[in-house]
Amino acid sequence: MNSERKMITIVGVGLIGGSLAIRLHEKKLCTKLIGVEANPEHAKQALELELVDEILPLDEAIDQSGVIILALPVDVMTNILLVVLDKVKDQIVMDVGSTKDLLIKTVAKHPRRGRFVATHPMWGTEYNGPKSAVKNAFENKVVVLCNPEESDADARQWVAGMYEKIGMQVLEMEAKAHDLHAAYVSHISHVTSFALANTVLEKEKEDEAIFAMASSGFESTVRLAKSHPAMWVPIFLQNKENVLDVLKEHITQLKRFKECLENDDEEYLKRLIEEANRIKKILK
Amino acid sequence: MNSERKMITIVGVGLIGGSLAIRLHEKKLCTKLIGVEANPEHAKQALELELVDEILPLDEAIDQSGVIILALPVDVMTNILLVVLDKVKDQIVMDVGSTKDLLIKTVAKHPRRGRFVATHPMWGTEYNGPKSAVKNAFENKVVVLCNPEESDADARQWVAGMYEKIGMQVLEMEAKAHDLHAAYVSHISHVTSFALANTVLEKEKEDEAIFAMASSGFESTVRLAKSHPAMWVPIFLQNKENVLDVLKEHITQLKRFKECLENDDEEYLKRLIEEANRIKKILK
Repeated sequence: MNSERKMITIVGVGLIGGSLAIRLHEKKLCTKLIGVEANPEHAKQALELELVDEILPLDEAIDQSGVIILALPVDVMTNILLVVLDKVKDQIVMDVGSTKDLLIKTVAKHPRRGRFVATHPMWGTEYNGPKSAVKNAFENKVVVLCNPEESDADARQWVAGMYEKIGMQVLEMEAKAHDLHAAYVSHISHVTSFALANTVLEKEKEDEAIFAMASSGFESTVRLAKSHPAMWVPIFLQNKENVLDVLKEHITQLKRFKECLENDDEEYLKRLIEEANRIKKILK
Repeated sequence: MNSERKMITIVGVGLIGGSLAIRLHEKKLCTKLIGVEANPEHAKQALELELVDEILPLDEAIDQSGVIILALPVDVMTNILLVVLDKVKDQIVMDVGSTKDLLIKTVAKHPRRGRFVATHPMWGTEYNGPKSAVKNAFENKVVVLCNPEESDADARQWVAGMYEKIGMQVLEMEAKAHDLHAAYVSHISHVTSFALANTVLEKEKEDEAIFAMASSGFESTVRLAKSHPAMWVPIFLQNKENVLDVLKEHITQLKRFKECLENDDEEYLKRLIEEANRIKKILK
Protein backbone atom coordinates (compact mmCIF):
# COMPACT_ATOMS: atom_id res chain seq x y z
CA MET A 1 0.00 0.00 0.00
CA ASN A 2 1.11 3.46 -0.83
CA SER A 3 -0.29 6.01 1.57
CA GLU A 4 1.21 8.99 -0.32
CA ARG A 5 -1.81 11.27 -0.82
CA LYS A 6 -0.63 12.27 -4.29
CA MET A 7 -1.37 8.83 -5.71
CA ILE A 8 -5.09 9.10 -6.37
CA THR A 9 -7.62 6.63 -7.78
CA ILE A 10 -10.87 7.70 -9.39
CA VAL A 11 -13.48 4.95 -9.59
CA GLY A 12 -15.81 5.87 -12.46
CA VAL A 13 -14.19 8.21 -14.97
CA GLY A 14 -17.32 9.93 -16.30
CA LEU A 15 -18.62 13.49 -16.14
CA ILE A 16 -17.78 14.11 -12.47
CA GLY A 17 -14.80 11.75 -12.12
CA GLY A 18 -13.29 12.96 -15.39
CA SER A 19 -13.81 16.65 -14.65
CA LEU A 20 -12.31 16.16 -11.20
CA ALA A 21 -9.32 14.37 -12.80
CA ILE A 22 -8.68 17.42 -15.03
CA ARG A 23 -8.83 19.69 -12.01
CA LEU A 24 -6.51 17.49 -9.85
CA HIS A 25 -3.93 17.42 -12.64
CA GLU A 26 -4.22 21.15 -13.26
CA LYS A 27 -3.81 22.07 -9.59
CA LYS A 28 -0.93 19.57 -9.24
CA LEU A 29 -2.75 17.74 -6.46
CA CYS A 30 -1.60 14.35 -7.77
CA THR A 31 1.57 12.79 -9.09
CA LYS A 32 -0.35 9.88 -10.57
CA LEU A 33 -4.04 9.39 -11.32
CA ILE A 34 -5.35 5.85 -11.61
CA GLY A 35 -8.73 5.16 -13.20
CA VAL A 36 -11.01 2.25 -12.38
CA GLU A 37 -13.66 1.91 -15.05
CA ALA A 38 -16.10 -0.97 -15.64
CA ASN A 39 -17.07 0.21 -19.13
CA PRO A 40 -14.19 -0.77 -21.52
CA GLU A 41 -15.11 1.94 -24.02
CA HIS A 42 -15.04 4.59 -21.28
CA ALA A 43 -11.75 3.19 -19.97
CA LYS A 44 -10.22 3.60 -23.45
CA GLN A 45 -11.57 7.15 -23.80
CA ALA A 46 -10.33 8.12 -20.32
CA LEU A 47 -6.78 7.14 -21.36
CA GLU A 48 -7.01 8.74 -24.80
CA LEU A 49 -8.25 11.98 -23.27
CA GLU A 50 -5.43 11.74 -20.69
CA LEU A 51 -7.91 12.09 -17.85
CA VAL A 52 -6.03 9.32 -15.99
CA ASP A 53 -2.49 7.95 -16.31
CA GLU A 54 -3.45 4.31 -16.06
CA ILE A 55 -6.50 2.04 -15.83
CA LEU A 56 -6.24 -0.69 -13.18
CA PRO A 57 -8.49 -3.23 -11.51
CA LEU A 58 -9.98 -1.94 -8.24
CA ASP A 59 -7.79 -4.08 -5.93
CA GLU A 60 -4.52 -2.97 -7.50
CA ALA A 61 -5.66 0.63 -7.67
CA ILE A 62 -6.49 0.65 -3.95
CA ASP A 63 -3.09 -0.84 -3.09
CA GLN A 64 -1.24 1.84 -5.02
CA SER A 65 -3.28 4.84 -3.83
CA GLY A 66 -3.44 7.18 -0.89
CA VAL A 67 -6.85 8.52 -1.86
CA ILE A 68 -9.77 6.72 -3.54
CA ILE A 69 -12.53 8.83 -5.06
CA LEU A 70 -15.82 7.12 -5.93
CA ALA A 71 -17.68 8.81 -8.78
CA LEU A 72 -20.41 6.31 -9.60
CA PRO A 73 -24.20 6.19 -9.92
CA VAL A 74 -25.56 6.20 -6.37
CA ASP A 75 -26.95 2.63 -6.51
CA VAL A 76 -23.53 1.21 -7.41
CA MET A 77 -21.87 3.53 -4.91
CA THR A 78 -23.22 1.82 -1.76
CA ASN A 79 -21.89 -1.59 -2.85
CA ILE A 80 -18.50 -0.40 -4.04
CA LEU A 81 -17.96 1.75 -0.95
CA LEU A 82 -18.33 -1.34 1.28
CA VAL A 83 -15.92 -3.31 -0.93
CA VAL A 84 -13.38 -0.48 -0.82
CA LEU A 85 -13.65 0.09 2.95
CA ASP A 86 -13.07 -3.65 3.46
CA LYS A 87 -9.75 -3.32 1.67
CA VAL A 88 -8.27 0.02 2.77
CA LYS A 89 -5.77 0.51 5.57
CA ASP A 90 -5.06 4.22 6.12
CA GLN A 91 -6.15 5.48 2.70
CA ILE A 92 -8.76 8.19 2.41
CA VAL A 93 -12.01 7.22 0.65
CA MET A 94 -14.51 9.80 -0.58
CA ASP A 95 -17.59 9.80 -2.80
CA VAL A 96 -19.13 12.54 -4.95
CA GLY A 97 -22.71 11.26 -5.19
CA SER A 98 -25.98 13.20 -5.20
CA THR A 99 -27.66 11.36 -2.30
CA LYS A 100 -26.14 10.87 1.13
CA ASP A 101 -28.45 9.42 3.77
CA LEU A 102 -28.56 5.79 2.60
CA LEU A 103 -24.83 5.73 1.82
CA ILE A 104 -23.90 7.01 5.26
CA LYS A 105 -26.28 4.59 6.98
CA THR A 106 -24.82 1.71 4.93
CA VAL A 107 -21.28 2.27 6.25
CA ALA A 108 -22.18 3.58 9.73
CA LYS A 109 -20.95 0.48 11.58
CA HIS A 110 -18.00 -0.33 9.32
CA PRO A 111 -14.75 -0.64 11.32
CA ARG A 112 -13.03 1.75 8.89
CA ARG A 113 -15.94 4.23 8.66
CA GLY A 114 -13.51 6.96 9.76
CA ARG A 115 -11.51 6.68 6.53
CA PHE A 116 -14.59 7.71 4.50
CA VAL A 117 -15.68 11.28 3.76
CA ALA A 118 -19.13 11.75 2.16
CA THR A 119 -19.23 14.69 -0.26
CA HIS A 120 -21.45 16.20 -2.93
CA PRO A 121 -19.91 18.84 -5.19
CA MET A 122 -22.86 20.93 -6.48
CA TRP A 123 -21.85 20.94 -10.11
CA GLY A 124 -22.86 18.91 -13.15
CA THR A 125 -24.13 19.02 -16.71
CA GLU A 126 -26.71 16.96 -18.60
CA TYR A 127 -23.98 14.90 -20.29
CA ASN A 128 -22.18 11.73 -19.20
CA GLY A 129 -19.09 9.63 -19.89
CA PRO A 130 -15.39 10.64 -20.11
CA LYS A 131 -16.00 12.80 -23.18
CA SER A 132 -18.31 15.02 -21.14
CA ALA A 133 -15.50 15.92 -18.70
CA VAL A 134 -14.69 19.64 -18.86
CA LYS A 135 -12.08 22.10 -17.65
CA ASN A 136 -12.87 24.61 -14.90
CA ALA A 137 -15.63 22.44 -13.48
CA PHE A 138 -16.53 23.01 -9.80
CA GLU A 139 -15.04 26.52 -9.75
CA ASN A 140 -16.85 28.86 -7.34
CA LYS A 141 -19.46 26.21 -6.57
CA VAL A 142 -20.46 24.77 -3.22
CA VAL A 143 -19.45 21.28 -2.06
CA VAL A 144 -21.33 19.67 0.80
CA LEU A 145 -19.44 17.47 3.30
CA CYS A 146 -21.91 15.26 5.15
CA ASN A 147 -21.64 14.07 8.75
CA PRO A 148 -18.00 15.19 8.91
CA GLU A 149 -17.78 14.23 12.60
CA GLU A 150 -17.96 10.56 11.55
CA SER A 151 -14.77 10.85 9.48
CA ASP A 152 -11.21 10.78 10.85
CA ALA A 153 -9.77 14.27 11.24
CA ASP A 154 -6.94 13.74 8.71
CA ALA A 155 -9.35 12.41 6.05
CA ARG A 156 -11.84 15.22 6.55
CA GLN A 157 -9.05 17.80 6.45
CA TRP A 158 -7.47 16.45 3.25
CA VAL A 159 -10.82 16.32 1.44
CA ALA A 160 -11.88 19.83 2.52
CA GLY A 161 -8.43 21.16 1.55
CA MET A 162 -8.57 19.49 -1.87
CA TYR A 163 -11.98 21.02 -2.61
CA GLU A 164 -10.79 24.47 -1.52
CA LYS A 165 -7.74 24.16 -3.79
CA ILE A 166 -9.96 23.44 -6.79
CA GLY A 167 -11.97 26.56 -6.01
CA MET A 168 -14.99 25.24 -4.12
CA GLN A 169 -16.72 26.53 -1.03
CA VAL A 170 -17.06 23.81 1.61
CA LEU A 171 -20.34 23.51 3.50
CA GLU A 172 -20.86 20.93 6.27
CA MET A 173 -24.28 19.38 6.72
CA GLU A 174 -26.03 16.32 8.14
CA ALA A 175 -26.93 13.75 5.47
CA LYS A 176 -30.67 14.09 6.08
CA ALA A 177 -30.58 17.87 5.59
CA HIS A 178 -28.45 17.45 2.48
CA ASP A 179 -30.91 15.06 0.86
CA LEU A 180 -33.82 17.38 1.62
CA HIS A 181 -32.04 20.41 0.18
CA ALA A 182 -30.80 18.48 -2.86
CA ALA A 183 -34.41 17.50 -3.62
CA TYR A 184 -35.32 21.20 -3.76
CA VAL A 185 -32.38 22.68 -5.63
CA SER A 186 -31.39 19.83 -7.94
CA HIS A 187 -33.56 16.71 -8.06
CA ILE A 188 -36.91 18.49 -8.67
CA SER A 189 -35.36 20.47 -11.56
CA HIS A 190 -34.55 17.19 -13.23
CA VAL A 191 -38.05 15.78 -12.67
CA THR A 192 -39.66 18.90 -14.18
CA SER A 193 -37.30 18.86 -17.16
CA PHE A 194 -37.96 15.20 -17.90
CA ALA A 195 -41.72 15.75 -17.56
CA LEU A 196 -41.64 18.89 -19.72
CA ALA A 197 -39.72 17.06 -22.45
CA ASN A 198 -42.31 14.28 -22.38
CA THR A 199 -45.15 16.83 -22.51
CA VAL A 200 -43.78 18.42 -25.66
CA LEU A 201 -42.59 15.19 -27.30
CA GLU A 202 -46.08 13.74 -26.77
CA LYS A 203 -47.53 16.63 -28.78
CA GLU A 204 -44.83 16.43 -31.41
CA LYS A 205 -46.16 13.04 -32.49
CA GLU A 206 -49.03 14.92 -34.15
CA ASP A 207 -47.17 18.01 -35.14
CA GLU A 208 -43.57 17.83 -36.28
CA ALA A 209 -43.28 21.55 -36.96
CA ILE A 210 -43.49 22.39 -33.29
CA PHE A 211 -39.78 22.50 -32.59
CA ALA A 212 -38.90 24.91 -35.36
CA MET A 213 -39.96 27.61 -32.91
CA ALA A 214 -38.12 26.31 -29.83
CA SER A 215 -36.21 29.20 -28.28
CA SER A 216 -33.58 29.65 -25.60
CA GLY A 217 -36.21 29.77 -22.83
CA PHE A 218 -37.41 26.33 -23.85
CA GLU A 219 -33.88 25.00 -24.11
CA SER A 220 -33.07 26.35 -20.67
CA THR A 221 -35.98 24.61 -18.94
CA VAL A 222 -35.63 21.34 -20.86
CA ARG A 223 -31.88 20.76 -21.26
CA LEU A 224 -31.62 18.65 -18.08
CA ALA A 225 -33.99 16.16 -19.77
CA LYS A 226 -30.96 14.86 -21.66
CA SER A 227 -29.59 13.46 -18.39
CA HIS A 228 -28.87 9.73 -18.16
CA PRO A 229 -31.35 7.33 -16.50
CA ALA A 230 -28.49 5.24 -15.02
CA MET A 231 -27.58 8.28 -12.94
CA TRP A 232 -31.04 9.64 -12.17
CA VAL A 233 -33.24 6.59 -11.52
CA PRO A 234 -31.22 5.61 -8.41
CA ILE A 235 -31.04 9.23 -7.19
CA PHE A 236 -34.83 9.62 -7.37
CA LEU A 237 -35.42 6.24 -5.69
CA GLN A 238 -32.87 6.76 -2.92
CA ASN A 239 -34.27 10.22 -2.19
CA LYS A 240 -37.87 9.35 -2.92
CA GLU A 241 -39.51 10.69 0.26
CA ASN A 242 -38.02 14.15 -0.24
CA VAL A 243 -38.51 14.19 -4.00
CA LEU A 244 -42.14 13.14 -3.54
CA ASP A 245 -42.75 15.95 -1.03
CA VAL A 246 -41.30 18.56 -3.39
CA LEU A 247 -43.07 17.09 -6.40
CA LYS A 248 -46.45 17.21 -4.62
CA GLU A 249 -45.87 20.84 -3.67
CA HIS A 250 -44.83 21.60 -7.25
CA ILE A 251 -48.01 20.02 -8.66
CA THR A 252 -50.00 22.13 -6.16
CA GLN A 253 -48.23 25.26 -7.41
CA LEU A 254 -48.94 24.33 -11.05
CA LYS A 255 -52.61 23.79 -10.19
CA ARG A 256 -52.75 27.36 -8.88
CA PHE A 257 -51.72 28.60 -12.33
CA LYS A 258 -54.32 26.27 -13.87
CA GLU A 259 -57.06 27.71 -11.63
CA CYS A 260 -56.07 31.28 -12.50
CA LEU A 261 -56.41 30.52 -16.18
CA GLU A 262 -59.67 28.60 -15.79
CA ASN A 263 -61.16 31.51 -13.82
CA ASP A 264 -59.54 34.35 -15.78
CA ASP A 265 -58.20 35.46 -12.40
CA GLU A 266 -55.82 38.16 -13.52
CA GLU A 267 -55.10 39.46 -10.02
CA TYR A 268 -54.14 36.07 -8.57
CA LEU A 269 -52.06 35.25 -11.63
CA LYS A 270 -50.18 38.51 -11.21
CA ARG A 271 -49.60 37.75 -7.53
CA LEU A 272 -48.26 34.25 -8.29
CA ILE A 273 -45.78 35.70 -10.79
CA GLU A 274 -44.72 38.47 -8.42
CA GLU A 275 -44.08 35.86 -5.74
CA ALA A 276 -42.01 33.83 -8.21
CA ASN A 277 -40.05 36.99 -9.10
CA ARG A 278 -38.60 36.90 -5.56
CA ILE A 279 -36.26 34.23 -6.95
CA LYS A 280 -34.21 37.24 -8.16
CA LYS A 281 -32.74 37.58 -4.70
CA ILE A 282 -31.28 34.08 -5.04
CA LEU A 283 -30.34 33.89 -8.72
CA LYS A 284 -28.10 36.84 -9.40
CA MET B 1 -46.12 61.90 -43.57
CA ASN B 2 -42.75 60.53 -44.48
CA SER B 3 -43.03 57.17 -46.21
CA GLU B 4 -39.25 56.66 -46.41
CA ARG B 5 -38.79 53.18 -44.88
CA LYS B 6 -35.58 54.22 -43.15
CA MET B 7 -37.43 56.43 -40.69
CA ILE B 8 -38.57 53.90 -38.13
CA THR B 9 -40.58 54.24 -34.92
CA ILE B 10 -40.40 51.71 -32.11
CA VAL B 11 -43.34 51.86 -29.71
CA GLY B 12 -42.12 50.40 -26.41
CA VAL B 13 -38.34 50.60 -26.04
CA GLY B 14 -37.84 47.63 -23.69
CA LEU B 15 -36.10 44.27 -24.03
CA ILE B 16 -37.41 43.44 -27.51
CA GLY B 17 -37.87 46.99 -28.84
CA GLY B 18 -34.48 48.07 -27.51
CA SER B 19 -32.62 45.00 -28.78
CA LEU B 20 -34.26 45.45 -32.18
CA ALA B 21 -33.18 49.12 -32.17
CA ILE B 22 -29.54 48.09 -31.63
CA ARG B 23 -29.80 45.63 -34.51
CA LEU B 24 -31.49 48.13 -36.90
CA HIS B 25 -28.76 50.70 -36.21
CA GLU B 26 -26.00 48.12 -36.57
CA LYS B 27 -27.30 46.79 -39.90
CA LYS B 28 -27.89 50.37 -41.14
CA LEU B 29 -31.56 49.63 -41.73
CA CYS B 30 -32.60 53.07 -40.45
CA THR B 31 -31.45 56.66 -40.82
CA LYS B 32 -33.45 57.72 -37.80
CA LEU B 33 -35.04 55.73 -34.99
CA ILE B 34 -37.87 57.33 -33.04
CA GLY B 35 -38.96 55.91 -29.70
CA VAL B 36 -42.47 56.13 -28.23
CA GLU B 37 -42.35 55.25 -24.56
CA ALA B 38 -45.07 55.71 -21.92
CA ASN B 39 -42.70 55.18 -18.98
CA PRO B 40 -40.70 58.44 -18.51
CA GLU B 41 -37.82 56.64 -16.78
CA HIS B 42 -37.56 54.15 -19.66
CA ALA B 43 -37.76 57.01 -22.19
CA LYS B 44 -34.80 58.70 -20.49
CA GLN B 45 -32.80 55.45 -20.40
CA ALA B 46 -33.58 54.71 -24.06
CA LEU B 47 -32.03 58.06 -25.03
CA GLU B 48 -29.06 57.74 -22.68
CA LEU B 49 -28.31 54.27 -24.03
CA GLU B 50 -28.68 55.68 -27.58
CA LEU B 51 -31.20 53.00 -28.45
CA VAL B 52 -33.31 55.66 -30.20
CA ASP B 53 -32.44 59.10 -31.61
CA GLU B 54 -35.51 60.85 -30.27
CA ILE B 55 -38.56 60.25 -28.08
CA LEU B 56 -41.81 61.59 -29.54
CA PRO B 57 -45.53 61.34 -28.83
CA LEU B 58 -47.20 58.57 -30.86
CA ASP B 59 -48.99 60.92 -33.33
CA GLU B 60 -45.84 62.81 -34.29
CA ALA B 61 -43.81 59.62 -34.49
CA ILE B 62 -46.33 58.05 -36.89
CA ASP B 63 -46.28 61.17 -39.09
CA GLN B 64 -42.50 61.10 -39.40
CA SER B 65 -42.08 57.35 -39.97
CA GLY B 66 -42.26 54.85 -42.79
CA VAL B 67 -42.36 51.88 -40.45
CA ILE B 68 -43.93 51.56 -36.99
CA ILE B 69 -42.86 48.64 -34.82
CA LEU B 70 -45.04 47.80 -31.81
CA ALA B 71 -43.10 46.13 -28.98
CA LEU B 72 -45.57 46.20 -26.12
CA PRO B 73 -47.18 43.78 -23.67
CA VAL B 74 -49.85 41.90 -25.64
CA ASP B 75 -52.82 43.42 -23.76
CA VAL B 76 -51.72 46.96 -24.63
CA MET B 77 -50.80 45.86 -28.14
CA THR B 78 -54.40 45.25 -29.34
CA ASN B 79 -55.49 48.77 -28.33
CA ILE B 80 -52.44 50.58 -29.66
CA LEU B 81 -52.52 48.68 -32.95
CA LEU B 82 -56.06 49.93 -33.62
CA VAL B 83 -55.04 53.50 -32.76
CA VAL B 84 -52.03 53.26 -35.06
CA LEU B 85 -53.93 51.71 -37.99
CA ASP B 86 -56.52 54.51 -37.70
CA LYS B 87 -53.73 57.02 -38.30
CA VAL B 88 -51.45 55.46 -40.90
CA LYS B 89 -51.55 56.11 -44.64
CA ASP B 90 -49.04 53.92 -46.49
CA GLN B 91 -46.73 53.21 -43.55
CA ILE B 92 -45.89 49.66 -42.58
CA VAL B 93 -47.01 48.58 -39.09
CA MET B 94 -45.70 45.43 -37.40
CA ASP B 95 -45.82 43.93 -33.93
CA VAL B 96 -43.41 41.59 -32.14
CA GLY B 97 -45.78 40.08 -29.55
CA SER B 98 -45.95 36.52 -28.19
CA THR B 99 -49.62 35.86 -28.97
CA LYS B 100 -51.23 36.33 -32.36
CA ASP B 101 -54.77 35.01 -32.69
CA LEU B 102 -56.62 37.73 -30.73
CA LEU B 103 -54.52 40.52 -32.25
CA ILE B 104 -55.20 39.37 -35.78
CA LYS B 105 -58.92 38.95 -35.10
CA THR B 106 -59.04 42.44 -33.57
CA VAL B 107 -57.83 44.12 -36.76
CA ALA B 108 -59.32 41.69 -39.28
CA LYS B 109 -61.92 44.15 -40.58
CA HIS B 110 -59.84 47.31 -40.31
CA PRO B 111 -59.75 49.22 -43.63
CA ARG B 112 -55.94 49.40 -43.38
CA ARG B 113 -55.43 45.78 -42.22
CA GLY B 114 -53.11 45.29 -45.19
CA ARG B 115 -50.54 47.72 -43.77
CA PHE B 116 -50.07 45.45 -40.72
CA VAL B 117 -47.71 42.47 -40.49
CA ALA B 118 -48.04 40.22 -37.41
CA THR B 119 -44.70 38.80 -36.28
CA HIS B 120 -43.14 36.96 -33.35
CA PRO B 121 -39.34 36.81 -33.21
CA MET B 122 -38.52 33.73 -31.09
CA TRP B 123 -35.98 35.39 -28.86
CA GLY B 124 -36.07 36.88 -25.37
CA THR B 125 -34.55 36.89 -21.93
CA GLU B 126 -36.03 37.04 -18.44
CA TYR B 127 -35.22 40.76 -18.13
CA ASN B 128 -37.17 43.87 -19.14
CA GLY B 129 -36.78 47.58 -19.81
CA PRO B 130 -34.28 49.49 -22.02
CA LYS B 131 -31.32 48.41 -19.88
CA SER B 132 -32.05 44.78 -20.75
CA ALA B 133 -31.56 45.44 -24.49
CA VAL B 134 -28.58 43.50 -25.84
CA LYS B 135 -26.39 43.29 -28.93
CA ASN B 136 -26.64 40.31 -31.28
CA ALA B 137 -30.19 39.50 -30.20
CA PHE B 138 -32.30 37.52 -32.70
CA GLU B 139 -29.27 36.14 -34.54
CA ASN B 140 -29.89 32.66 -36.01
CA LYS B 141 -33.32 32.48 -34.39
CA VAL B 142 -36.69 31.89 -36.02
CA VAL B 143 -39.27 34.64 -36.55
CA VAL B 144 -42.88 33.69 -37.25
CA LEU B 145 -44.94 35.80 -39.66
CA CYS B 146 -48.63 35.13 -39.07
CA ASN B 147 -51.38 35.15 -41.69
CA PRO B 148 -49.06 36.83 -44.20
CA GLU B 149 -51.73 36.67 -46.92
CA GLU B 150 -53.71 39.32 -45.00
CA SER B 151 -50.88 41.86 -45.33
CA ASP B 152 -50.09 43.98 -48.40
CA ALA B 153 -47.28 42.47 -50.48
CA ASP B 154 -44.91 45.45 -49.99
CA ALA B 155 -45.37 45.41 -46.19
CA ARG B 156 -44.87 41.68 -45.91
CA GLN B 157 -41.81 41.85 -48.15
CA TRP B 158 -40.17 44.70 -46.19
CA VAL B 159 -40.74 42.97 -42.84
CA ALA B 160 -39.45 39.57 -44.03
CA GLY B 161 -36.43 41.28 -45.62
CA MET B 162 -35.65 43.24 -42.44
CA TYR B 163 -35.74 40.06 -40.32
CA GLU B 164 -33.48 38.24 -42.79
CA LYS B 165 -31.00 41.13 -42.71
CA ILE B 166 -30.77 40.91 -38.91
CA GLY B 167 -30.01 37.20 -39.22
CA MET B 168 -33.37 35.55 -38.60
CA GLN B 169 -35.05 32.64 -40.35
CA VAL B 170 -38.58 33.56 -41.45
CA LEU B 171 -41.36 31.03 -40.93
CA GLU B 172 -44.94 31.68 -42.08
CA MET B 173 -47.82 30.29 -40.05
CA GLU B 174 -51.50 30.79 -39.32
CA ALA B 175 -52.13 32.65 -36.04
CA LYS B 176 -53.94 29.71 -34.44
CA ALA B 177 -51.05 27.32 -35.17
CA HIS B 178 -48.58 29.89 -33.88
CA ASP B 179 -50.40 30.28 -30.56
CA LEU B 180 -50.59 26.52 -30.09
CA HIS B 181 -46.88 26.04 -30.81
CA ALA B 182 -45.89 29.01 -28.67
CA ALA B 183 -47.77 27.43 -25.74
CA TYR B 184 -45.58 24.32 -26.11
CA VAL B 185 -42.16 25.83 -26.74
CA SER B 186 -42.34 29.05 -24.77
CA HIS B 187 -45.37 29.73 -22.58
CA ILE B 188 -45.34 26.42 -20.66
CA SER B 189 -41.62 26.88 -19.86
CA HIS B 190 -42.54 30.13 -18.14
CA VAL B 191 -45.41 28.55 -16.19
CA THR B 192 -43.15 25.74 -14.94
CA SER B 193 -40.39 28.17 -13.97
CA PHE B 194 -42.76 30.41 -12.04
CA ALA B 195 -44.29 27.39 -10.30
CA LEU B 196 -40.89 25.87 -9.51
CA ALA B 197 -39.68 29.15 -8.02
CA ASN B 198 -42.80 29.28 -5.83
CA THR B 199 -42.30 25.64 -4.79
CA VAL B 200 -38.78 26.34 -3.57
CA LEU B 201 -39.49 29.79 -2.11
CA GLU B 202 -42.37 28.26 -0.12
CA LYS B 203 -39.92 25.84 1.50
CA GLU B 204 -37.31 28.51 2.03
CA LYS B 205 -39.60 30.22 4.53
CA GLU B 206 -38.69 27.44 6.96
CA ASP B 207 -35.16 26.86 5.83
CA GLU B 208 -33.00 29.73 4.72
CA ALA B 209 -29.93 27.58 4.05
CA ILE B 210 -31.57 25.86 1.12
CA PHE B 211 -30.20 28.14 -1.60
CA ALA B 212 -26.57 27.83 -0.61
CA MET B 213 -26.62 24.62 -2.61
CA ALA B 214 -28.44 25.92 -5.71
CA SER B 215 -26.50 24.82 -8.77
CA SER B 216 -26.53 25.60 -12.47
CA GLY B 217 -29.22 22.98 -13.15
CA PHE B 218 -31.54 24.78 -10.75
CA GLU B 219 -30.69 28.16 -12.23
CA SER B 220 -31.37 26.86 -15.72
CA THR B 221 -34.87 25.62 -14.90
CA VAL B 222 -35.82 28.61 -12.74
CA ARG B 223 -34.29 31.65 -14.44
CA LEU B 224 -37.43 32.43 -16.46
CA ALA B 225 -39.22 32.97 -13.13
CA LYS B 226 -37.62 36.42 -13.05
CA SER B 227 -39.83 37.42 -16.01
CA HIS B 228 -42.16 40.40 -15.58
CA PRO B 229 -45.88 39.90 -14.80
CA ALA B 230 -46.86 42.87 -17.02
CA MET B 231 -45.58 40.87 -19.97
CA TRP B 232 -46.67 37.36 -18.94
CA VAL B 233 -50.12 37.78 -17.36
CA PRO B 234 -51.64 38.99 -20.66
CA ILE B 235 -49.81 36.31 -22.69
CA PHE B 236 -51.16 33.52 -20.47
CA LEU B 237 -54.69 34.98 -20.52
CA GLN B 238 -54.77 35.61 -24.28
CA ASN B 239 -53.48 32.11 -24.97
CA LYS B 240 -55.29 30.45 -22.09
CA GLU B 241 -56.94 27.57 -23.98
CA ASN B 242 -53.64 26.35 -25.39
CA VAL B 243 -51.66 27.01 -22.20
CA LEU B 244 -54.30 25.12 -20.19
CA ASP B 245 -54.11 22.12 -22.52
CA VAL B 246 -50.32 21.96 -22.25
CA LEU B 247 -50.40 22.57 -18.51
CA LYS B 248 -52.88 19.70 -17.97
CA GLU B 249 -50.69 17.36 -20.03
CA HIS B 250 -47.64 18.52 -18.06
CA ILE B 251 -49.36 17.82 -14.72
CA THR B 252 -50.26 14.35 -16.07
CA GLN B 253 -46.61 13.75 -16.96
CA LEU B 254 -45.47 14.88 -13.49
CA LYS B 255 -48.01 12.53 -11.89
CA ARG B 256 -46.40 9.64 -13.79
CA PHE B 257 -43.11 10.42 -12.03
CA LYS B 258 -44.99 10.66 -8.74
CA GLU B 259 -46.56 7.21 -9.27
CA CYS B 260 -43.17 5.67 -10.12
CA LEU B 261 -41.73 6.95 -6.87
CA GLU B 262 -44.74 5.94 -4.79
CA ASN B 263 -44.59 2.41 -6.24
CA ASP B 264 -40.78 2.10 -6.41
CA ASP B 265 -41.36 1.35 -10.09
CA GLU B 266 -37.78 1.43 -11.32
CA GLU B 267 -38.57 0.09 -14.80
CA TYR B 268 -41.28 2.65 -15.57
CA LEU B 269 -39.14 5.48 -14.17
CA LYS B 270 -36.31 4.40 -16.45
CA ARG B 271 -38.67 4.33 -19.42
CA LEU B 272 -40.00 7.84 -18.66
CA ILE B 273 -36.46 9.20 -18.54
CA GLU B 274 -35.45 7.40 -21.73
CA GLU B 275 -38.47 8.89 -23.46
CA ALA B 276 -37.49 12.35 -22.21
CA ASN B 277 -33.95 11.76 -23.51
CA ARG B 278 -35.37 11.88 -27.04
CA ILE B 279 -35.32 15.66 -26.60
CA LYS B 280 -31.66 15.31 -27.66
CA LYS B 281 -32.73 15.15 -31.27
CA ILE B 282 -34.25 18.65 -30.90
CA LEU B 283 -31.84 20.39 -28.53
CA LYS B 284 -28.42 20.06 -30.08
